[in-house]
Amino acid sequence: MKQIRVGVLGYGYWGPNLARNIAETDGLCLAAIADERADRRAAAARRHAGVAVADSAASTIDADRIDAVAIATPLSTHFPLARAAIEAGKHVLVEKPLAASRREAETLGELAAKQGVRLMVDHTFVYNGAVRRIRGIIDSGELGELLYLDSVRVNLGLFQTDSNVIWDLAAHDLAVMDYLVDERPVSVSANGSSMAGFAHENIAYITVHFANGFLGHFHVNWLAPVKIRQMLLGGRQRMLVYDDMDPREKVRVYDKGVDFSIQDYEARRQILVSYRTGDMYAPKHDRREALSLVTAEFASAIAERREPMTGAAAGIRVVSMLEAAEQSLRNEGRRITI
Amino acid sequence: MKQIRVGVLGYGYWGPNLARNIAETDGLCLAAIADERADRRAAAARRHAGVAVADSAASTIDADRIDAVAIATPLSTHFPLARAAIEAGKHVLVEKPLAASRREAETLGELAAKQGVRLMVDHTFVYNGAVRRIRGIIDSGELGELLYLDSVRVNLGLFQTDSNVIWDLAAHDLAVMDYLVDERPVSVSANGSSMAGFAHENIAYITVHFANGFLGHFHVNWLAPVKIRQMLLGGRQRMLVYDDMDPREKVRVYDKGVDFSIQDYEARRQILVSYRTGDMYAPKHDRREALSLVTAEFASAIAERREPMTGAAAGIRVVSMLEAAEQSLRNEGRRITI
Amino acid sequence: MKQIRVGVLGYGYWGPNLARNIAETDGLCLAAIADERADRRAAAARRHAGVAVADSAASTIDADRIDAVAIATPLSTHFPLARAAIEAGKHVLVEKPLAASRREAETLGELAAKQGVRLMVDHTFVYNGAVRRIRGIIDSGELGELLYLDSVRVNLGLFQTDSNVIWDLAAHDLAVMDYLVDERPVSVSANGSSMAGFAHENIAYITVHFANGFLGHFHVNWLAPVKIRQMLLGGRQRMLVYDDMDPREKVRVYDKGVDFSIQDYEARRQILVSYRTGDMYAPKHDRREALSLVTAEFASAIAERREPMTGAAAGIRVVSMLEAAEQSLRNEGRRITI
Amino acid sequence: MKQIRVGVLGYGYWGPNLARNIAETDGLCLAAIADERADRRAAAARRHAGVAVADSAASTIDADRIDAVAIATPLSTHFPLARAAIEAGKHVLVEKPLAASRREAETLGELAAKQGVRLMVDHTFVYNGAVRRIRGIIDSGELGELLYLDSVRVNLGLFQTDSNVIWDLAAHDLAVMDYLVDERPVSVSANGSSMAGFAHENIAYITVHFANGFLGHFHVNWLAPVKIRQMLLGGRQRMLVYDDMDPREKVRVYDKGVDFSIQDYEARRQILVSYRTGDMYAPKHDRREALSLVTAEFASAIAERREPMTGAAAGIRVVSMLEAAEQSLRNEGRRITI
Repeated sequence: MKQIRVGVLGYGYWGPNLARNIAETDGLCLAAIADERADRRAAAARRHAGVAVADSAASTIDADRIDAVAIATPLSTHFPLARAAIEAGKHVLVEKPLAASRREAETLGELAAKQGVRLMVDHTFVYNGAVRRIRGIIDSGELGELLYLDSVRVNLGLFQTDSNVIWDLAAHDLAVMDYLVDERPVSVSANGSSMAGFAHENIAYITVHFANGFLGHFHVNWLAPVKIRQMLLGGRQRMLVYDDMDPREKVRVYDKGVDFSIQDYEARRQILVSYRTGDMYAPKHDRREALSLVTAEFASAIAERREPMTGAAAGIRVVSMLEAAEQSLRNEGRRITI
Repeated sequence: MKQIRVGVLGYGYWGPNLARNIAETDGLCLAAIADERADRRAAAARRHAGVAVADSAASTIDADRIDAVAIATPLSTHFPLARAAIEAGKHVLVEKPLAASRREAETLGELAAKQGVRLMVDHTFVYNGAVRRIRGIIDSGELGELLYLDSVRVNLGLFQTDSNVIWDLAAHDLAVMDYLVDERPVSVSANGSSMAGFAHENIAYITVHFANGFLGHFHVNWLAPVKIRQMLLGGRQRMLVYDDMDPREKVRVYDKGVDFSIQDYEARRQILVSYRTGDMYAPKHDRREALSLVTAEFASAIAERREPMTGAAAGIRVVSMLEAAEQSLRNEGRRITI
Repeated sequence: MKQIRVGVLGYGYWGPNLARNIAETDGLCLAAIADERADRRAAAARRHAGVAVADSAASTIDADRIDAVAIATPLSTHFPLARAAIEAGKHVLVEKPLAASRREAETLGELAAKQGVRLMVDHTFVYNGAVRRIRGIIDSGELGELLYLDSVRVNLGLFQTDSNVIWDLAAHDLAVMDYLVDERPVSVSANGSSMAGFAHENIAYITVHFANGFLGHFHVNWLAPVKIRQMLLGGRQRMLVYDDMDPREKVRVYDKGVDFSIQDYEARRQILVSYRTGDMYAPKHDRREALSLVTAEFASAIAERREPMTGAAAGIRVVSMLEAAEQSLRNEGRRITI
Repeated sequence: MKQIRVGVLGYGYWGPNLARNIAETDGLCLAAIADERADRRAAAARRHAGVAVADSAASTIDADRIDAVAIATPLSTHFPLARAAIEAGKHVLVEKPLAASRREAETLGELAAKQGVRLMVDHTFVYNGAVRRIRGIIDSGELGELLYLDSVRVNLGLFQTDSNVIWDLAAHDLAVMDYLVDERPVSVSANGSSMAGFAHENIAYITVHFANGFLGHFHVNWLAPVKIRQMLLGGRQRMLVYDDMDPREKVRVYDKGVDFSIQDYEARRQILVSYRTGDMYAPKHDRREALSLVTAEFASAIAERREPMTGAAAGIRVVSMLEAAEQSLRNEGRRITI
């Protein structure tokens, strides 16, 4: 198999992870790293001897010896860099979210289709072993009809200088919901605030409404004292908890959903007193680094000339929800139709 | 001290707890229990030999030998029973929420003032040792300016046949916020759904907005696979987590709030990687049953002819928020001014 | 069914629990409570109106209207009180351990057989829902051959003035092992120490050896900063963890035991890196108070004129292990044959 | 500073970690990797382009361009390889334990002194941020007189084909105790078993006795269903728990030790009921990879011509305890004087 030569654009927080995984993925070859900052270029050179290191993303994109680029630069630059790469005939892997607006995301999708190159968005959590295991559990039908998804992703940190907590953190969880739930949302509400004197919202609550009554809710927060990454997924037959911080049992499936047979008030009250009802099981799952599966999927999609699992369509859907959430945030939480 | 003779109205889920605590409270004497159901009356008679058991709340209210009543009946009956008791000159302790509407709650408050009797609402969690410890921590100033309160109270159960999850579960957490936060809210938004074919909402998300930017958010859910009762309270200097399900450390105080001194992007990213920053401490707190402090406060307020800590005013404030939340729920999450 | 009239001897820590459960057990009637201390008698009278309260165990034992006694006095008095009761023709329930020596325990067993009365020891944890569930799991064969039982029961506290931590805490866990494991031990080793100037050992480690290679180990400690009650039970096919402090999942069954098929060193190393391998499930179990099942078993055994589940034989076996452990402790940890 | 050129001997489980950290340590240069297995050599070559890879440890030791070796081969080969390296005038870092017997360890120590080279043992956990923080807490005096150390290190895995669980796992914890506790032990007892048909003990309990009454106890187990790494350290004033599996709070300090002032039996019973007493705090600590500090210490000790923190003396002390534990295991748990 011909090696795909990949250039990594941006070597800040996520770039080093992309570079490392690209270097170790069969079918990919880490060929170049570009970053404007000298200290980051020095770090890249130390860790990846033999890889070309440049200060310009543009020249890396244009280099003939580059077949593809992986973009890990600030959100506002996703669009211009991805467009330039696609127009230069290069395959593109973009850090989430795909772009800063639905219009940008759609434009990239159309351009890639026209140019016949692969456009993939790095929705990392979709490749996480626990999340893929949950998709398998949903597919088995054991949860029954899905009722709601409740997600909490909070930690202490102030990271994006050019966007708010929704675009940074909720992008992960909306991508996960997009992957797990086949129905498509109809509207989005959001409330939030930019606290402690910051320019962008650092705490937000997003509600995603579906035509069939399914409800998605997302709490994202940069001002939390502890790191919580927890998801509840309620089904009529069974429900599950996905706690990404639990070193032992990330996924727990509870065998009681909503029991219609309990009519008696006292009996139902008894359930309240319990911490849980019914048996629980915690399936094992693939514990490989999710990003290694992202880069492997990028390699396969290019080699097989097919859409990647998280291609332009998924990227556009997630950006659409993010855009609607931000619009709701600017309109006192009103529902914004997608 | 003269013993206050108390009649308990309703012996379903909460009534037995009230009766037991009243019986063991200095200054109170459990004198009567009323319930329409024969099986509950039998249970009451078995556990409280020597206490009059009746099938009629009305006759218990009117009985001369009764000085006060504790109401633990369905929400819709709080108002008529409390009104009758107040008009009969009896002191009244009502299970939360005080009444089914702001108007009812205010009417009860006015009546009690006119009659010169004590009206108290059983906001149990306000008397919880951990919650009182948190109030002490706030008062010490160590948290700095309060930024937000995020509360999750979920479990599996279907309980109220005459109201939804907001009136049942959120009443607890709104009462806690009312106790902890001195500022008063200006508006409320809520989203939710009645899933799996039930008549009332069984999952809801409430956002409470304050003039000074403080934000309260409440997730209440009867369809969750596990019982979670967790609260985050963010301050500018320190933040705390209150996990009511943790048998060891219910309250944890983290000594990093928002640090403005970290300017470097990489350094801030480092924080993201950490599970937490700074030291943490978990103060010990009073572990006595909260309800025993509720009944003790009821006894003291009567003896000292003073307002109880959770009197009509607190009850009205909480009912106002509940009413606004329900109204928002009926209006696609629009903000309802209180 | 004739009511068995029970007198409770000792109203300190455990006596109130026994009295409360006896009062609520069908077939039993709480008829008398005896304690030397006036403050405890007052507490007993307040909680159990209508029950005779006495300062003398002897007169309670002899009272004609008493059919049975429940003994919750210090260990050194178990033997004389139980003997007196048996000789007076009364059924006897004794707080664990049955007696202060094997000889005493055997004497009580023989006396009870001769007198035709029931002698039962309150091995409370044997009646715990989680422990009974574990017995069911063992019986189902799913664990395969049992390999070892490792138990930790530690907390902060100094309780017995007349005995050490082995007789106080290890009695619980040895009773559980006696219930779960059908094989009988052959010898016991123990190491421990009386720290911080106390008269009796407050930390001890006990190893119980079996002929078939099964190993039991018990860590008991009154000087631990946290309360831990955890048991590992290893089988060839599956293993389980019983954490009595976990409010959600007390019993967890892991589906990997010892896998003989993994020959490769690297593959086995991989397992080390994992937090666990294989699926896990957490079965639900009876959450009723264990002591209510103890008193119910006492009532049934008397009514049906049969041996109780934890009768003299179980009591003697546990006391034998305790005695051997203490002997080993006095002999530098040498193995003492039972 | 002149770069120390290091050859890594053994590229199985621990060798890759050593190689990676050596490559990133200032003052060290990864110059060679030796392993008998071709697949491991291939892995080494892929990850460390430019580093000489050999199939013979002997030739690597003898190579002139090598200044030091890091040994990560099976225990039985530690002695011959370390001896050959020392005799060739090379500095030596040995994976724990230093050697397979006290005699071997002492011989290596003497040889290194004679040759004037640095001999260091990789007691990794001694360099762990949490463990170093605990040492700081001990030094501050806040724990008061130390009473006991109780350590549990269990997981599922079968790793050493040439030694038992004591030499593999207990080596870690004995090294930690050796680092934390200044007193020296006088004797060791051990019980254990080789279960499920294995040649070496896979479960063991070790008790280490000190002249001043301090007690150390170690549970090591390759047959446990879950990974537990927990240590209790009891002091007269305060006690601490070190849970290496806890992602949030690895070290918790409890402010109640043994309180001599509580005389009343009932009051002490109350403590039993609590999960804990007193406040707790969880100090933050250095979260850097411990092995990076091991290799940094190796570099510094060589550069400064001084004893490393975990030099021959610490290595000999730990091997002495391991040897005594094994001897006790072969003698029914008898105490073996060190």
